[in-house]
Amino acid sequence: MARAVELARLGHGSTSPNPVVGCVVLDAEGRVAGEGFHAYAGGPHAEVVALAQAGERARGGTAYVTLEPCDHTGRTGPCSRALLEAGVARVVVAVPDPNPKAAGGAARLRAHGVAVTSGVLTEPAERVNEEWLTYARLGRAHVTWKFAATLDGRSAAEDGTSQWITSPEARADVHRMRAGADAIMAGVGTVLADDPRLTARPEKARPEMTRPEMTRPETARPETAGSEAARSGATRSGSAVRVPLRVVVDTDARTPQAARVLDDAAPTLVAVAEDAGTDLKADLLRLPRHDGGLDLHALLRELAARDVVSVFLEGGPTLAGAFVARGLVDRVVAYLAPALLGSGPAALGAAGAGTIADLHRLTFDEISPMGPDVRLIARPALHPGKEQ
Amino acid sequence: MARAVELARLGHGSTSPNPVVGCVVLDAEGRVAGEGFHAYAGGPHAEVVALAQAGERARGGTAYVTLEPCDHTGRTGPCSRALLEAGVARVVVAVPDPNPKAAGGAARLRAHGVAVTSGVLTEPAERVNEEWLTYARLGRAHVTWKFAATLDGRSAAEDGTSQWITSPEARADVHRMRAGADAIMAGVGTVLADDPRLTARPEKARPEMTRPEMTRPETARPETAGSEAARSGATRSGSAVRVPLRVVVDTDARTPQAARVLDDAAPTLVAVAEDAGTDLKADLLRLPRHDGGLDLHALLRELAARDVVSVFLEGGPTLAGAFVARGLVDRVVAYLAPALLGSGPAALGAAGAGTIADLHRLTFDEISPMGPDVRLIARPALHPGKEQ
Ligand SMILES: NC(=O)c1ccc[n+]([C@@H]2O[C@H](COP(=O)([O-])OP(=O)(O)OC[C@H]3O[C@@H](n4cnc5c(N)ncnc54)[C@H](OP(=O)(O)O)[C@@H]3O)[C@@H](O)[C@H]2O)c1
Ligand SMILES: NC(=O)c1ccc[n+]([C@@H]2O[C@H](COP(=O)([O-])OP(=O)(O)OC[C@H]3O[C@@H](n4cnc5c(N)ncnc54)[C@H](OP(=O)(O)O)[C@@H]3O)[C@@H](O)[C@H]2O)c1
Repeated sequence: MARAVELARLGHGSTSPNPVVGCVVLDAEGRVAGEGFHAYAGGPHAEVVALAQAGERARGGTAYVTLEPCDHTGRTGPCSRALLEAGVARVVVAVPDPNPKAAGGAARLRAHGVAVTSGVLTEPAERVNEEWLTYARLGRAHVTWKFAATLDGRSAAEDGTSQWITSPEARADVHRMRAGADAIMAGVGTVLADDPRLTARPEKARPEMTRPEMTRPETARPETAGSEAARSGATRSGSAVRVPLRVVVDTDARTPQAARVLDDAAPTLVAVAEDAGTDLKADLLRLPRHDGGLDLHALLRELAARDVVSVFLEGGPTLAGAFVARGLVDRVVAYLAPALLGSGPAALGAAGAGTIADLHRLTFDEISPMGPDVRLIARPALHPGKEQ
Repeated sequence: MARAVELARLGHGSTSPNPVVGCVVLDAEGRVAGEGFHAYAGGPHAEVVALAQAGERARGGTAYVTLEPCDHTGRTGPCSRALLEAGVARVVVAVPDPNPKAAGGAARLRAHGVAVTSGVLTEPAERVNEEWLTYARLGRAHVTWKFAATLDGRSAAEDGTSQWITSPEARADVHRMRAGADAIMAGVGTVLADDPRLTARPEKARPEMTRPEMTRPETARPETAGSEAARSGATRSGSAVRVPLRVVVDTDARTPQAARVLDDAAPTLVAVAEDAGTDLKADLLRLPRHDGGLDLHALLRELAARDVVSVFLEGGPTLAGAFVARGLVDRVVAYLAPALLGSGPAALGAAGAGTIADLHRLTFDEISPMGPDVRLIARPALHPGKEQ
């Protein structure tokens, strides 16, 4: 199953709005017969890839799958049927499918006499699929909030200057993160102050910065028969690179028509209030007002309805504070520079925690040096129960 | 020399106002004959300990010393003479002695025909002696500023509540750090707000939290003949534990007579303005005013004159900002909790950097998990040229 989770990870960032899934098929003697992962939406599912590789060797064997096999016919046929047809005797599942449209795969398999075990290596399998599980369970897009600041939490000096607090290494990492998201979001305050492009511009030249499925050497493990088939799903992403949607949160449609975020480098959605009067030529998303701004819950639900599974929230502090206050930040990525300012705008604005009992507690997932800076990745300690 | 640096480190935190020094003596065939470190002020110097261990085996041998051997007779005789008497043929030095009273050791050795090499493994040897070298070179105490904050740089919530942002592990680490300093310092704002004790209370029960020279097993390396002698210097610290001086920076002597910092748990110095009228019963240090507060340069020079080599500055934000602004922070220790506040007092107050060009740049030395928190240790990128 650990290998299946590894395989699932290879699809990360390109399967949206589908989950990432990995599958390993063992033959009746317990030898690896096939491996597969879901590489892009509309492409073959992990089970189908692994079964194709295994061929007749799957008969009487075991399939390890990171997510419960689907039971519905979408763009591809149901995986439960493919497993039955291949004649596997046992299916081991890490995470049950929370999607009512797809669930039922385990039940159908059991009904046909296949032994199904569930809950194996659940935690890493949940982690690798975190964005999609949030989307499927809560019906809203998953939010990663990124900020860059000094060690004392300032994202600019008193006079507003901020270039460059963090290093080229940290900025390159941000572009890689943006490229893996379905949408890149900012508040209108940031658009007005910085006129950002909000596009992902990963450095193409350096191989470790391109998409994982194009670089991970594990996909071509020579010891696995038919690894060509396992990789076949990955070829498409080379030709059709997905461009993240840009989203501006802009209650009263104050985004200037000439803003860079409205150029043709990527599609852009400007979220405005239902009653905002505007002649802005842009794709507008009308939302209810809430607490003086827009209803952020509604925003994330609307995005989910448009197949946006993951949002990379770039700030600014006001909008980020509102997301944190509502329990709508699922992951925090902080780039801290070894530097002190002592004054200037804070990285995070008011977040509804006026007293220490309301502190938004997180846990650190990863602490890594990033050039001269440090990158800290954290997630809410009590998630998603805290969402309000 | 790497071993000599390791030995030097064993004295860290208990040699003040002396440097930490480590020494390894090889016999004429290049075999280790003696090891020593300086364990406490007034105790035998590293060279003397190592030579005593080596005995006749030192003759014609080589001594590796992390700091240039002293040439003056203080509480102990000059080490240069001890090396000559022992008949060593060669002395290898990492860092030349910046102390005019002690320097000249290398010159005297050379004058007597001993080959002296300098500048070997200088960087780690400087690092292990960092506090004392700052004190010896700049004539002022070395300053470590510690702060504890949320990931977004807040040290308390909006209403002032702050218990507990960081974990018991981080707080225990603070006590260990306090215990290694000669003085613990805070501004009167912190005394008035929190009434802290400013004492070092390391948990005695857990062996890894007691003083290094009492626990490091390396001091009793069985393969080294006479390691008893190398350890002998360490015995004293068991009986007379040094208590850090407490220093309150209090321009107008606003410290209440009943403040805990004035209890008898440790000696306390209250730094006040030359013209401050007060009937406070406390050990007062009168200092010139500067920029509305006290002259912090003068404060650190006065402390150095009282044999305070290292200061552990605990804040608050106002005083820390003043130290940072004047380039008087030599090391920053930040404990960041995985938590967000979005409002409340910042960890660092105004530090004279109004625009990004005046950013106080540091470099990270150490990034370590500390229970659920992270501890980041940094030092000025351009030190000490920036001091003003
Ligand atoms: N260091 C970093 O990582 C980083 C990243 C991005 C930006 N920044 C800096 O942040 C600054 C701009 O930030 P900012 O705080 O002024 O603006 P912002 O957070 O980018 O945008 C805030 C605006 O979003 C709109 N909004 C709509 N619904 C909202 C809701 N529910 N809650 C809160 N806001 C909502 C509001 O517009 P209306 O007022 O029209 O309702 C609000 O004024 C710039 O100086 C930029 O340089 C730093
Ligand atoms: N998170 C942490 O790690 C941490 C640590 C300690 C404290 N704190 C918090 O910090 C708060 C208190 O901090 P604070 O900023 O109000 O006070 P502070 O920094 O503790 O003390 C500032 C005072 O120091 C005196 N001072 C003397 N010379 C000075 C100089 N050259 N420059 C600046 N100050 C000088 C001034 O007193 P005069 O005004 O009399 O001249 C000044 O008001 C408390 O709420 C406490 O809880 C947090």
